[in-house]
Amino acid sequence: MTTDTVAKECAVVVEIGGRRITIGGMAKGSGMIHPNMATMLAIVTTDAELDVRVARGALRAATELSFNQVSVDRDTSTNDTLVLLASGAAGGASIQPGTPEATRFAGALEAVCIDLARKVARDGEGASRLITVVVDGARNEVEARRVAREIACSPLVKTAVYGRDPNWGRIMMAIGNAGASLAPHTIDVFIGDVQVAADGGAIPFDAAAVSEAMGANEVIIRVDLNGGFGHGEAWGCDLTEQYVKINAEYTT
Amino acid sequence: MTTDTVAKECAVVVEIGGRRITIGGMAKGSGMIHPNMATMLAIVTTDAELDVRVARGALRAATELSFNQVSVDRDTSTNDTLVLLASGAAGGASIQPGTPEATRFAGALEAVCIDLARKVARDGEGASRLITVVVDGARNEVEARRVAREIACSPLVKTAVYGRDPNWGRIMMAIGNAGASLAPHTIDVFIGDVQVAADGGAIPFDAAAVSEAMGANEVIIRVDLNGGFGHGEAWGCDLTEQYVKINAEYTT
Repeated sequence: MTTDTVAKECAVVVEIGGRRITIGGMAKGSGMIHPNMATMLAIVTTDAELDVRVARGALRAATELSFNQVSVDRDTSTNDTLVLLASGAAGGASIQPGTPEATRFAGALEAVCIDLARKVARDGEGASRLITVVVDGARNEVEARRVAREIACSPLVKTAVYGRDPNWGRIMMAIGNAGASLAPHTIDVFIGDVQVAADGGAIPFDAAAVSEAMGANEVIIRVDLNGGFGHGEAWGCDLTEQYVKINAEYTT
Repeated sequence: MTTDTVAKECAVVVEIGGRRITIGGMAKGSGMIHPNMATMLAIVTTDAELDVRVARGALRAATELSFNQVSVDRDTSTNDTLVLLASGAAGGASIQPGTPEATRFAGALEAVCIDLARKVARDGEGASRLITVVVDGARNEVEARRVAREIACSPLVKTAVYGRDPNWGRIMMAIGNAGASLAPHTIDVFIGDVQVAADGGAIPFDAAAVSEAMGANEVIIRVDLNGGFGHGEAWGCDLTEQYVKINAEYTT
């Protein structure tokens, strides 16, 4: 039994080394989704001719920024799979490591994987909205991603989004849980375009307008830790009664 | 605003060194509950006369086995407090470290703290049932407690309990997430008195009877890892639509 409600597919076409290269992917998964990868099955194919080191390196890097940054429920499974298949059907020389072509391929692959990861989060069990978390100003990228994940994973942030409550205290709580090096009094928090906390504290803002904006299909939570140059993103979904219903009524 | 629905109190009377000693406690907290302690406030008082080392040592040990083993929603807060106050009003000599009296006091304090922790879990936001997890056969006690916590924290285990579904696969999933050293093929799982998995695999059992038993006020999940002598317990609650409702509708 699957609880997916939509097909998750993505394809991009890029010109690399004078050839038209296609990268296409599909993913399955909506519950038991948590870094790393959870009950997710994803297949990405390309007609590029790839040196195996390019394939491995690009896939590993893209995974870190995509499937390993997505969470539905913090639970995981054992049959997680992400496969990249390269046919070489586009012709041309094999793409070699350390070349501009390899960088270009890696960028395109990353875009496909991020798109698929977002679609998995958007179709999370019972979800009504995609939550995108963008963290800047961390000491490094690893910490930025960890803080972003923690916010996207928090059940209290997820229920606040569901209830369209601009409760930035819950976001601060999740930031604090990430175990990253940070100074609370330098943290700025934004929901959509509106700043809801500055220097780690309350500021006046139009709560009704933010609540209204939180009804959008995608709710963007942005945090600046103002403590470095680390940037990271993560994706999740709101937590609704429907998630409970699906998983309480599911029978094996 | 508090979301507690009941008062959480406990008192025991023990004879220590020929004196009648009372230990009484009260706790507050129902959401943002997760080790370590979360949004919980607990005060324990005693009329024993305690050497400060006994007080500190006994409280630290009791906390590890009680408040640090309880979870409602994996989210935490910043104002967690557990205080032990000793008045000495019972009279008698101060209880000294390393004595049988200290051991006896520590045991009584542990009982009070575990009782309060269970009451916090039982009154978790939206909870309809207390989940008690007992893990045996771990390599050591730390790992046993970690496995127990992971089971008690899993949203899929929590929704399975809510739905009275003897879905032992979710329990195995949570065990695997704990990062403990274990051999999957030696794991036995029991729900209440009924064994639902043996040697890490399926066995026939009366699913309807287990489902019926899962309607009890307290659902006991017991796991034997058969890999050592480590024992640990943890407490949580089921995850219901009401948890989502409370936290989506809560406004600061």
